[in-house]
Amino acid sequence: MNIQDIKTGVVNGNKRAAARLITMFENGDSSALEIMKDLYHLTGRAKVIGITGPPGAGKSTVTDQIAKLIRKQNKKVGIVAIDPTSPFSHGAILGDRIRMGDLNTDAGVFIRSMGTRGALGGLSDAVYGTVNILDIFGMDYIFIETVGVGQSEVDIVKVADVVVMVMVPGLGDDIQTMKAGIMEIGDIFAVNKSDKEGAQRTAAEIEAMLSFSNKKMQDNPVLNITAKNNDGIDKLFSTINERYDKMYSDGSLNERTKSNLRGKIISILQSNLLKSALKLDDKTGMLKKLVEDVFNKKIDPYTASDLLYKNFQMGDEK
Amino acid sequence: MNIQDIKTGVVNGNKRAAARLITMFENGDSSALEIMKDLYHLTGRAKVIGITGPPGAGKSTVTDQIAKLIRKQNKKVGIVAIDPTSPFSHGAILGDRIRMGDLNTDAGVFIRSMGTRGALGGLSDAVYGTVNILDIFGMDYIFIETVGVGQSEVDIVKVADVVVMVMVPGLGDDIQTMKAGIMEIGDIFAVNKSDKEGAQRTAAEIEAMLSFSNKKMQDNPVLNITAKNNDGIDKLFSTINERYDKMYSDGSLNERTKSNLRGKIISILQSNLLKSALKLDDKTGMLKKLVEDVFNKKIDPYTASDLLYKNFQMGDEK
Repeated sequence: MNIQDIKTGVVNGNKRAAARLITMFENGDSSALEIMKDLYHLTGRAKVIGITGPPGAGKSTVTDQIAKLIRKQNKKVGIVAIDPTSPFSHGAILGDRIRMGDLNTDAGVFIRSMGTRGALGGLSDAVYGTVNILDIFGMDYIFIETVGVGQSEVDIVKVADVVVMVMVPGLGDDIQTMKAGIMEIGDIFAVNKSDKEGAQRTAAEIEAMLSFSNKKMQDNPVLNITAKNNDGIDKLFSTINERYDKMYSDGSLNERTKSNLRGKIISILQSNLLKSALKLDDKTGMLKKLVEDVFNKKIDPYTASDLLYKNFQMGDEK
Repeated sequence: MNIQDIKTGVVNGNKRAAARLITMFENGDSSALEIMKDLYHLTGRAKVIGITGPPGAGKSTVTDQIAKLIRKQNKKVGIVAIDPTSPFSHGAILGDRIRMGDLNTDAGVFIRSMGTRGALGGLSDAVYGTVNILDIFGMDYIFIETVGVGQSEVDIVKVADVVVMVMVPGLGDDIQTMKAGIMEIGDIFAVNKSDKEGAQRTAAEIEAMLSFSNKKMQDNPVLNITAKNNDGIDKLFSTINERYDKMYSDGSLNERTKSNLRGKIISILQSNLLKSALKLDDKTGMLKKLVEDVFNKKIDPYTASDLLYKNFQMGDEK
């Protein structure tokens, strides 16, 4: 498949072409970037839904059940699932996660797993690129599913139009802490595994917290669901759509999109600046020497970084 | 307190001076940076211990109990606790967390809470700076305590010499996923709340996983503890020290420190590059216009970022 085939393939809904373009984009292929630039004007049709929450909350089950519901309405759905990555091996631990069987073989479903990368970022850019590709590819809904509650979640979820925070009863003593920290990321709160003890109490706690929070969040819906039994999924999906429509009509979706775009442009700029600096360093070998010098306390890491910066500036002028 | 007072104060163990320097450093004060550069050669004496793991695992209780033990040996201890932050308010949710009362008033203990910042990073740099300040300040042990399991954890924990992964029995269905992802960050695994059902099984599961993992990790200790009853804390602390000594003598600590330093220098460089680019943009107002253009699909975000990059290069040459 050549570049032109991939480009037309993505626009015409060829799954292999989309998969290929995502891989190329992830690998930093420059022709993939050119395709993205050319096709960007075709984005903006899909509704992008973030699914996040603590480990063990059953996020994939929630995503899969909503995806099935969407398929019953004959609409297309993309899923971008973020797997935790080892910081040492730099690869996704689980590879393509095993999803519900019937989704894997459905032509109207596109599932992509991505690993959390090294410290130089890249994941949120890769997720953003993948969402754009799936949007161009013609998906009606795109889910971004992330594990964990860290800063990376926030960055990733910033791409979404609507964010569902999946909670679970009885997470332990410092659930209060956790809820406070992630609270404002969620547009909708779904307490999953509501067949378990304490589910109503967890929902009530979240509602209480929201009532004390800023005005914007006070009306954020809190639902009890049990995804594995498909219990409450209909209601959750209609709530997502209502939320989207409300945000669309009151202008807050545009506001959020612009704020997201600003973050994305900066994040791409940051990656590019760093890439150029490190590429230049590959030639000079300066960094390796500086690490030794800092290790031996000959200089400090801030001065080392300043020296690299100066080297970058000079290299840039040539 | 003037700059010189702060500088000598930190070296001479003045708590107020250290607190002040950390705040200045967090706020990007340039004189704080100069002090850090001057005093960097005094770092490297403290043992830096990372305490991480999923929400609800009781990480602060574990940290507090070890800190008490260290105080009984008349050694000094610093604690840097990362609180989850709202992505909208950009401040730490809980402020300085309420720790065990006797630690708060102990002159040999320095506790600092930090919030997870916005997408432009900064937290791992701030944590690194704080650890260095507490090291210069004369702490024997410094704990870095983080909530969550995301990429930010990995970045933060990369500053530590030894990392303790605090686990907890019965975290839910996808504990396997979570464990796989964070597995290789942990040098020592402590299953906290081992008075609860399933604690032995969780420990056995972790051991089984380690046995299938890479050679480096196969001997990583797995302990059952119950921090709130001070059960197993002695053993955990001696295990931390043994691990540190082993890593020191076999050279792997030096290797890790160099790898950490490399990451830090790059991260500081990345922050500096971005800061300069955005500072320049403040003058030109280019970003705001580009966001509108991307929103209206006149251009794509990658081209927008390229334009900012070019602007940065030209601005730099002047």
